[in-house]
Amino acid sequence: MVIKVGGSEGIDYRSFCEEVAELWHGGQRMVLVHGGSTLTNQVAEKMGHPPQFVTSPSGYTSRYTDRRTMEIFQMVYCGQMNKTLVEYLQGLDVNAMGLSGMDGGLWQARHKAHLKVVEQGRTRILRDNLTGRVEQVNTALLHSLLDSGYLPVLTPPALSHEGLAVNVDGDRAAAMTASGMKATELLLLSNVPGLLRDLEDENSLVKDILLTNLEEAGQLAKGRMRIKLLGAREALRSGVEKVILGDARHQGPICQALSGQGTTIWRN
Amino acid sequence: MVIKVGGSEGIDYRSFCEEVAELWHGGQRMVLVHGGSTLTNQVAEKMGHPPQFVTSPSGYTSRYTDRRTMEIFQMVYCGQMNKTLVEYLQGLDVNAMGLSGMDGGLWQARHKAHLKVVEQGRTRILRDNLTGRVEQVNTALLHSLLDSGYLPVLTPPALSHEGLAVNVDGDRAAAMTASGMKATELLLLSNVPGLLRDLEDENSLVKDILLTNLEEAGQLAKGRMRIKLLGAREALRSGVEKVILGDARHQGPICQALSGQGTTIWRN
Repeated sequence: MVIKVGGSEGIDYRSFCEEVAELWHGGQRMVLVHGGSTLTNQVAEKMGHPPQFVTSPSGYTSRYTDRRTMEIFQMVYCGQMNKTLVEYLQGLDVNAMGLSGMDGGLWQARHKAHLKVVEQGRTRILRDNLTGRVEQVNTALLHSLLDSGYLPVLTPPALSHEGLAVNVDGDRAAAMTASGMKATELLLLSNVPGLLRDLEDENSLVKDILLTNLEEAGQLAKGRMRIKLLGAREALRSGVEKVILGDARHQGPICQALSGQGTTIWRN
Repeated sequence: MVIKVGGSEGIDYRSFCEEVAELWHGGQRMVLVHGGSTLTNQVAEKMGHPPQFVTSPSGYTSRYTDRRTMEIFQMVYCGQMNKTLVEYLQGLDVNAMGLSGMDGGLWQARHKAHLKVVEQGRTRILRDNLTGRVEQVNTALLHSLLDSGYLPVLTPPALSHEGLAVNVDGDRAAAMTASGMKATELLLLSNVPGLLRDLEDENSLVKDILLTNLEEAGQLAKGRMRIKLLGAREALRSGVEKVILGDARHQGPICQALSGQGTTIWRN
């Protein structure tokens, strides 16, 4: 099982870790992936280098990552967020090991230095963007850590084939990790109940989707949710049995997701 | 071989990593430890939580680490510094793996919550100080990483026996690591040539010291150098053959230190 917990506001990380610890002590083999976007934005403001977001022609929004942004990104993701989760888990007797995608060549990514973006209706090319997409996962390392009793806690950035730190989308990196590890389940937990028919109405949750209907259901998705569905599709197509979009704002988010409280996307 | 590279101003990390890579590719088995104090002070100022230093009755100076300081400390040490070194090394085809002392229970420490400090000639007790001293090293993890071809790049904080992140002195943590790994050599690289007879004169370097004479030679040490000598003594007493205090401001700091350019402290 691979579980990604987002970095949006409202997520209770301590309660999340308590549930992870319970499952772990019960013998559940798993890999965690986490985000950190909200905190990164706050720190970037304080450090005098405010975040910049860009939109691709196909409508996907992402963080523009220059060298200074990468430093701040690493501070928050690899420093504060990753080590906070490791500390919580170690305090619960889980032998957690926090790693970025660069450590041990864990996530090898293709660097996309040039990015087409749309600004006020006009398309232009952004250069020197330190982002990319995970293409390969060092699964030997993850299996060896799990076999030795360590719980891997993973975070972007990844490592480009040229040896550079590149920002990658955490949901899609988790999807690649789930595929590589031949996980049966991928949980993408954030601060929404799942895929909603009506963004304003949390009761309009879509409970189940079949992979074959994912494209159609995807018409409902906006913003971050579109990238989550992209990750879900990638994971399901490469063998993961189900992907669950769940809510991490409440206690017991993992069991809630597993028991069908979120949006479950089935391979078949 | 265990090499600690400090976090003081003037250190050229890229050139340090180039030399590490050369030795690594030549088959040298090693573990790196790094600091990050200067950058932590800068970031702490920017984040509106300036650093505070305290002095113990025996004259040792250390960082007062409250919860917020620990967050900033982790951002810089585990985030920016650690991942910068990992990125440089990966870019040089060294499969580096950056870990804090908490990850995998690598450095287990005794938490010293209460600290006697001297302020303007008066002694008082500081409470809730998140610092400690490494008592045990997970050497099984380090050996297993080295055997699999990964270069461990270690950084404070450590993990207290109660599961808390605690700030530990990097030089002494490196000394404990060298002892635990039964390393023959421990290199403590910083931004001074070594132990000086006269702090104002870089030519007054003490080139060789025998462990039996260390206490006497230690009379010359001030500030950080006193803690380095404390670490050196601990390492030598538990089996390390020599400890070298070297200068990382120039190219090739490791070979320079090994060839006797710094202060070498011999077990016998």
